[in-house]
Amino acid sequence: MTRIFNFCAGPATLPLPVLERARDELLDYRGTGMSVMEISHRSSTFDEMANQTEACLRRLMSIPDDYTVLFLAGGATTQFAQVPLNLADPQRPGAYVVDGSWSKKAHGIAARLGLAHLAASSEDTGFRTIPAEQEWNLDGEFAYLHYVSNETISGVQFAQPPECGLPLVADMSSDILSRPVEVEKFGVIYAGAQKNVGQAGIALVVVKKDLLRDLPTEIPDLQSWKVQHEQGSRLNTPPTYAWYIAGLVFDWIETQGGVERMAELNQHKAQTLYSFLDQSQFYRNEIPAEFRSHMNIPFQIVDESLHPQFIAEAEAAGLSSLKGHRSVGGMRASIYNAMPIDGILALIDFMRDFESRAG
Amino acid sequence: MTRIFNFCAGPATLPLPVLERARDELLDYRGTGMSVMEISHRSSTFDEMANQTEACLRRLMSIPDDYTVLFLAGGATTQFAQVPLNLADPQRPGAYVVDGSWSKKAHGIAARLGLAHLAASSEDTGFRTIPAEQEWNLDGEFAYLHYVSNETISGVQFAQPPECGLPLVADMSSDILSRPVEVEKFGVIYAGAQKNVGQAGIALVVVKKDLLRDLPTEIPDLQSWKVQHEQGSRLNTPPTYAWYIAGLVFDWIETQGGVERMAELNQHKAQTLYSFLDQSQFYRNEIPAEFRSHMNIPFQIVDESLHPQFIAEAEAAGLSSLKGHRSVGGMRASIYNAMPIDGILALIDFMRDFESRAG
Repeated sequence: MTRIFNFCAGPATLPLPVLERARDELLDYRGTGMSVMEISHRSSTFDEMANQTEACLRRLMSIPDDYTVLFLAGGATTQFAQVPLNLADPQRPGAYVVDGSWSKKAHGIAARLGLAHLAASSEDTGFRTIPAEQEWNLDGEFAYLHYVSNETISGVQFAQPPECGLPLVADMSSDILSRPVEVEKFGVIYAGAQKNVGQAGIALVVVKKDLLRDLPTEIPDLQSWKVQHEQGSRLNTPPTYAWYIAGLVFDWIETQGGVERMAELNQHKAQTLYSFLDQSQFYRNEIPAEFRSHMNIPFQIVDESLHPQFIAEAEAAGLSSLKGHRSVGGMRASIYNAMPIDGILALIDFMRDFESRAG
Repeated sequence: MTRIFNFCAGPATLPLPVLERARDELLDYRGTGMSVMEISHRSSTFDEMANQTEACLRRLMSIPDDYTVLFLAGGATTQFAQVPLNLADPQRPGAYVVDGSWSKKAHGIAARLGLAHLAASSEDTGFRTIPAEQEWNLDGEFAYLHYVSNETISGVQFAQPPECGLPLVADMSSDILSRPVEVEKFGVIYAGAQKNVGQAGIALVVVKKDLLRDLPTEIPDLQSWKVQHEQGSRLNTPPTYAWYIAGLVFDWIETQGGVERMAELNQHKAQTLYSFLDQSQFYRNEIPAEFRSHMNIPFQIVDESLHPQFIAEAEAAGLSSLKGHRSVGGMRASIYNAMPIDGILALIDFMRDFESRAG
């Protein structure tokens, strides 16, 4: 077996030790004689797994006791509707900062529910920047301020959470657990799992308990964070295997030294690639330094006609899924927690070699 | 490793060859150098897997071309809301036949949306029967007739689909692929995966295309079958690994001889256990023969005080998760496709032995 370096934006590469443990336990979960896939979500075995998983996440993120941790079916897009349904009213909508494709989608879904206010957008810069906080329009009464901490497509990332005074609601799908965050600063942190947490099909939702509320009767209970909190995220059968994989990933992060260590490694990985790009006359990244993502690094060749050849040859060389999103073009290296520095170095070696042949 | 016999109602036991294949492919999906969990849902590799999976399901169930097949995040409970949202109007609600806990939940969620009519209920029999079709109240205009083909808790099953003239919408979560069904008779067939299809967190939804329609703007697109159909069930990142496991299960069923062969085996398994129960003075099953499920067989000991001992000793003997639902009490053997006849025989041997010691 030859593992390749997978730069996909998501579903993304997972730590090899996580996959090996999943493989080794696949037919017999810790002596139960069953696969995790076959275990009742109402069993003590599952309870124990779920409790350990939550406890590990709480340690990793220093989640205070007045926050609940939910594991819900679907992804962040599912939560794009659940956020306003659980927090906003027509008289008190959510305020949205739009700095990329995902925050635009989140705003659009809330707007269709009549529960959104657009506070700021950087769409006029092609989402290459983040709107300056002093220019956000927050005149009015709002239930929360929603932002996406890292935008995977254009590759911009909030260096720090905003300080606008509203309860912060952050979609951290693409940078959760990649660096420390002060959970106390947030009302809600949510994340689809398929980038830094594990397997597609489950989302983490961390909610300050005083924000939990009863929903109108016509909203199905599955969409109610309060009900899901009361039911331990098991109102119905949850995605049990994806939950388990998340637990393996949390364990792995802890073994590696926690999110502080992840942040060091991620900064080193990103800096290595950005430094190479910045000294190059052949490649470029168009994002101003202060907005650059540590997770998703889009880059182009100055001669754009070479992009298809680059992508094809990289793929053949075991550097997979480097094609950029069609709205940006060129290439994109997604380098979440599970991407080792060796993947970055292999990519840079390939880029040097490609340049020497094509440049 | 010792595999046990797992009689859990769901998540349920899976075919050993499916688990072995998942294990063997876990680190490297068919030479890609990646786990299925790590593969983009927009990649040609995933497309091919999804297409093969759908084609296999279409062969197994003889699904006509004028039906779409969706693979959606969540489970049947998620669909309890999506069914009325996609098909009904306040002026034309869905009609519900309630013959167990699941159909009662489905009706309740549709009723909270103002989109339900109760056509019949057997709750007054403790859900031990199915309401006779000639007594259903179908006076009015209804978008569909909803029923649950097999009720896991009380253990009743429709022997045949109803013939009421309305578009049939069937929750087949617990008996899909366990016997042939004439898909042409249905408007919609849906099923959570964690019983006969694979892993929790994904639902199959088979919809006659002429029922697909645009939804009001305030319903998120994720809940629209029409949009999901147009997007190949990939409006957002789907539960890719659960989708893959479903494909492995479909392959396994085909290898075994298809749903006709499954039906023969399931009938034999159920008949073997019911026959044993019916000749016993010690054990009993309270469901009239015409309503008995081939998938979930609740049973009690006449001396009910022995139930805890039975369940504990069975668990210790490798016959797991036999505890019945608390609303019924006693025991329940869930014997979906993946439960081999050897599991039934081992259970009966144990029951004989327990009786000889306790009786």
